[in-house]
Amino acid sequence: MNTINVAVLGATGTVGQKFITLLEGHPYFKVAEVVASPRSAGKRYDEATNWKQDNFIPTDVANLVVKSTDDALESKILFSGMDASVAGEIEEKYAAAGHIIISNARNHRMNPVVPLAIPEINHDHLNAIKTQPWKGGIITNSNCSTMFLAMVLAPLHKAFGIDFLHVTTMQAISGAGYPGVASMDILGNVVPFIGGEEEKMEIEAQKILGSFDGEKIISADFKVSAQCNRVPVFDGHTETLSIKFKKSATPEEVKEVLRNFRGFAQEKNLPSAPAQPIIVFEEENRPQPARDVWKGNGMATCVGRIRKCPLNDVKMVIMGHNTVRGAAGAAILNAEAIVEMGLV
Amino acid sequence: MNTINVAVLGATGTVGQKFITLLEGHPYFKVAEVVASPRSAGKRYDEATNWKQDNFIPTDVANLVVKSTDDALESKILFSGMDASVAGEIEEKYAAAGHIIISNARNHRMNPVVPLAIPEINHDHLNAIKTQPWKGGIITNSNCSTMFLAMVLAPLHKAFGIDFLHVTTMQAISGAGYPGVASMDILGNVVPFIGGEEEKMEIEAQKILGSFDGEKIISADFKVSAQCNRVPVFDGHTETLSIKFKKSATPEEVKEVLRNFRGFAQEKNLPSAPAQPIIVFEEENRPQPARDVWKGNGMATCVGRIRKCPLNDVKMVIMGHNTVRGAAGAAILNAEAIVEMGLV
Amino acid sequence: MNTINVAVLGATGTVGQKFITLLEGHPYFKVAEVVASPRSAGKRYDEATNWKQDNFIPTDVANLVVKSTDDALESKILFSGMDASVAGEIEEKYAAAGHIIISNARNHRMNPVVPLAIPEINHDHLNAIKTQPWKGGIITNSNCSTMFLAMVLAPLHKAFGIDFLHVTTMQAISGAGYPGVASMDILGNVVPFIGGEEEKMEIEAQKILGSFDGEKIISADFKVSAQCNRVPVFDGHTETLSIKFKKSATPEEVKEVLRNFRGFAQEKNLPSAPAQPIIVFEEENRPQPARDVWKGNGMATCVGRIRKCPLNDVKMVIMGHNTVRGAAGAAILNAEAIVEMGLV
Amino acid sequence: MNTINVAVLGATGTVGQKFITLLEGHPYFKVAEVVASPRSAGKRYDEATNWKQDNFIPTDVANLVVKSTDDALESKILFSGMDASVAGEIEEKYAAAGHIIISNARNHRMNPVVPLAIPEINHDHLNAIKTQPWKGGIITNSNCSTMFLAMVLAPLHKAFGIDFLHVTTMQAISGAGYPGVASMDILGNVVPFIGGEEEKMEIEAQKILGSFDGEKIISADFKVSAQCNRVPVFDGHTETLSIKFKKSATPEEVKEVLRNFRGFAQEKNLPSAPAQPIIVFEEENRPQPARDVWKGNGMATCVGRIRKCPLNDVKMVIMGHNTVRGAAGAAILNAEAIVEMGLV
Repeated sequence: MNTINVAVLGATGTVGQKFITLLEGHPYFKVAEVVASPRSAGKRYDEATNWKQDNFIPTDVANLVVKSTDDALESKILFSGMDASVAGEIEEKYAAAGHIIISNARNHRMNPVVPLAIPEINHDHLNAIKTQPWKGGIITNSNCSTMFLAMVLAPLHKAFGIDFLHVTTMQAISGAGYPGVASMDILGNVVPFIGGEEEKMEIEAQKILGSFDGEKIISADFKVSAQCNRVPVFDGHTETLSIKFKKSATPEEVKEVLRNFRGFAQEKNLPSAPAQPIIVFEEENRPQPARDVWKGNGMATCVGRIRKCPLNDVKMVIMGHNTVRGAAGAAILNAEAIVEMGLV
Repeated sequence: MNTINVAVLGATGTVGQKFITLLEGHPYFKVAEVVASPRSAGKRYDEATNWKQDNFIPTDVANLVVKSTDDALESKILFSGMDASVAGEIEEKYAAAGHIIISNARNHRMNPVVPLAIPEINHDHLNAIKTQPWKGGIITNSNCSTMFLAMVLAPLHKAFGIDFLHVTTMQAISGAGYPGVASMDILGNVVPFIGGEEEKMEIEAQKILGSFDGEKIISADFKVSAQCNRVPVFDGHTETLSIKFKKSATPEEVKEVLRNFRGFAQEKNLPSAPAQPIIVFEEENRPQPARDVWKGNGMATCVGRIRKCPLNDVKMVIMGHNTVRGAAGAAILNAEAIVEMGLV
Repeated sequence: MNTINVAVLGATGTVGQKFITLLEGHPYFKVAEVVASPRSAGKRYDEATNWKQDNFIPTDVANLVVKSTDDALESKILFSGMDASVAGEIEEKYAAAGHIIISNARNHRMNPVVPLAIPEINHDHLNAIKTQPWKGGIITNSNCSTMFLAMVLAPLHKAFGIDFLHVTTMQAISGAGYPGVASMDILGNVVPFIGGEEEKMEIEAQKILGSFDGEKIISADFKVSAQCNRVPVFDGHTETLSIKFKKSATPEEVKEVLRNFRGFAQEKNLPSAPAQPIIVFEEENRPQPARDVWKGNGMATCVGRIRKCPLNDVKMVIMGHNTVRGAAGAAILNAEAIVEMGLV
Repeated sequence: MNTINVAVLGATGTVGQKFITLLEGHPYFKVAEVVASPRSAGKRYDEATNWKQDNFIPTDVANLVVKSTDDALESKILFSGMDASVAGEIEEKYAAAGHIIISNARNHRMNPVVPLAIPEINHDHLNAIKTQPWKGGIITNSNCSTMFLAMVLAPLHKAFGIDFLHVTTMQAISGAGYPGVASMDILGNVVPFIGGEEEKMEIEAQKILGSFDGEKIISADFKVSAQCNRVPVFDGHTETLSIKFKKSATPEEVKEVLRNFRGFAQEKNLPSAPAQPIIVFEEENRPQPARDVWKGNGMATCVGRIRKCPLNDVKMVIMGHNTVRGAAGAAILNAEAIVEMGLV
């Protein structure tokens, strides 16, 4: 396969930088265009960007001249790390012009013809881009906190049926972008509120686990109650769950289902897919973000403390890398899936 | 009233130090004896102690010679900050000898003739010391995480009846004592496990909200599912709750009940009692441990984000000072209550 | 003495909030006017302000209507917590109009007719306001890092003469204001750079320890080499020093001089003056910001590890509260001094 | 070359775990024996060890049975991560028995016939093992803080001659091992003391930069004044330097010397050697531990802010990975060097 040129929208921001970092040396894709607000346009990428990643800027990207979101683009596939305040309109404009937008923004997630896709779970939803009103298409991935939740719920829903669940999150600061959370607000502190997060967590998983009827995606029928907190962790969202199944299940049955879970991404061996999408820990105090966030190159969902809940079927702790599996890496995996499926 | 001489058991440990700090200048009590393991006994207190509090050691206590837990003691009231591994036997020995033990240890908490007391909620349970098998008596306070939970549940149980609840905690490192949690385990991390904590949280609140029938204390009948986490916060346990009442209630009704709650500690104006035991915040991102832990001199329970739960009646966030209201301060308030009630 | 009405400029910012917090219940001063940018003007203070202090907003201040820096003011004394980007011009305007500005901003610090005042060290410099070109006057306090340095150097300079010194700082995040340092930049990190800080530290102490000849202030003659770092500490700047004296001195002599130091602020018992301006620790691992920052109500300078330097006379560690002694508290102490000196 | 079997002494401790992690897949060495205290001996490695690394235990090592330090060993090369309290005697015993000990402990560092070796700087010192009194030999690497200092001083000493220098460190918690620093001591805090560290920093670099006369190693002649602090950083020691050269040099000359520095480790392309041993940053706020600690796979020394010092020639900031380049990685590089030099 020849390498496919791609563009990164919102290339100077935190998610954009993560796209560029994760796409370095990618077997399918090559970053050929970097696109940002008109304010940055015309500058060389390394001059326009306050680079916050641990690696150095890949040399070939550093030397690209930043394009404006007003410009026409050459790449077919556009990775969008744009802020939700502008992403909606610009993504639609490029989709209308024939591009396929792989978006991390929330704007189109709940549109019933837009896949909210996770290639381990619902790769068939990706076919919905053929029914979209644009010449090109838009594909989204979930909110970072929903990602790990959906990943765990998917095989359990299939096996036992989800009835309802409670989730409390302890989310990393990198989830708020840069500059994001002020250090005076979070050092040695917990902030028990993240704007808009609970609302997203209470509806997105149902769409991900829903079905595509050839025309639109219909959400699965279960209820989620979410409570979201920010904690002083750099990368890695931790979540405690209590789940009620439609058909009761023991902790051991749940563990087995999670351990054995594999999806389309693993079957097709997509480049960014973790060999084992869900890692189940037996240690009583794992997973932990500072220890486990890079498991599966940041693409695995870590699960631990699966045990009986006095009120529902099981309690457990889940954790994953919010800016890799929960954002840029999820989008890249979606792009790999549509290549594999011949949708681009 | 003359000042009452008291002893502190486990005086060199973290809770013992907190007792000494909070009792400095107390209107009822004067620390006249400090008691520790035989290893520390015979030394001057300031030499025997690795002092970890922010104030300097009160001069009169610094000069006391540490007594051994093998020694007979002169004080009637003993504050016990001993570790649970030794507290059980030693507390009973002193109770048998006629002392009244105000204990922060978990050992006797679930004994049906031992009050698990919070003077705002169940000061009548304190009368149980008259039915105890010892010449003196033992009074306990709850686990630090249970304290804030029980404080919030008590008025709600009276108003609406608690059916069941989910609680996820984000607990401060000071709750594990010193040296306690290794910095390599918690810096920038979440540890989703605290040994024995969930078990305590799932039974203690029911006893606190239970009734004393003149012979023993009978636990209230509701279920708790707890998930406990350690976070990099110095002082202040934060907890997210989802509560189902027997009689449904709106967030506004819940707020009003909590705001208006006052108990015996407030009626009698006990020295350590906060004027308002429960502070309800309207800000969407409060309470926060680093901001609010000293509200009411560390004796208030802070509550925020009271809102509808998609699954139960209400969700909310609660927070309080784990080593003040949740430990040493709670014990001191219990001692103040028995003085006020003429039980000593 | 009747209470003196004062205004706070930059009242909605971090330093302004600290002024309001520290002036609550002050025996000399009452906050009668709060002043901010035209954007906030006209709103009630509690609505205009993103309050970040641990206390609640004092009720009388909460209800004040914010004035604009374009407005004429009634108070004689104005505490300025304005940002340096605007402070220069506005402070001069008000000084010209007859007000006395007690400024925490850097703009006028090095003006030879403007006192860079610390009432323990150079209260005589305050007389310079009589020689200033304005109808009123401007008085400044030092940069927060310089404060603790100058406090320690002053008695040593008098006793032994400072020849030169090296200082490396580890500065708290609150020194950068709000939102200030992004959490992604400082959590678990050290940032070895603070814009403009080293330049200030290398010249301000000399002016503070200099002399006022009746017309202008002449800086003392010694050299400082400063290296400034930001560390993940909330409040409290820690600094390591290596000092070369003109007349050699032993660590014991240095300790004695520091311990015995008292100044005008102590002699006159000014309300904000710490009883002991410099606290010398003998413990090998003190002072520490998280333990000692509130010593002397945040107004003391803590010193420890005074020992021989293989290259110069002594090495030591100093630490103090950057937003109290190092900013708002220092300004208030200056205001107290001019009241005491009859300069207002 | 055939793979060489090696043993790890102190295999269950923090440094021992790091050896095992870094030796996974090593081209020269294979961990064939794991050795610990008699208490752990006889257990399988993964059962004997409280594993604290981010990776999983390499499977082949996990299944090894732990040997006791009383046992005879088969491997020629022993990596010693033992605690200094026991390392001295045990290392000598094994050296007498013919093993070559590559030790990270401090015990033998200042022995004039024991190399304190850094293959970029003084690989010729390694020949001293031929003059040692043991059948085998002992090779040490420096204290973690000295490592980065020596690395920077070596080329500068050659170019300009070091006269003296001041260094203040801000050291990571991982440098204290596990459990090491209590979280209550360091969260949001600075501890301005690390036992024994300043003493080591003030003498080790001179030995590293000294000369081997065929019989013993003679330290170079310059003076170091060190002030050591612990900060809440996980990995990466940051140090501020002020250096006086014998022959004066400008910041630009210093930069050039550091950038161009290469040593034996690079010439021979040793497996653990970073391609560029010293990375010079031009950004005003780098290096930073959280950003740069993994540069050169944790084996590079990062340098920034090289600028004029008002008192000496230059000031700068240096930073490196304390448990990789500063400990286990340094030892492995030493072992690679002696293989390359035919000394084993």
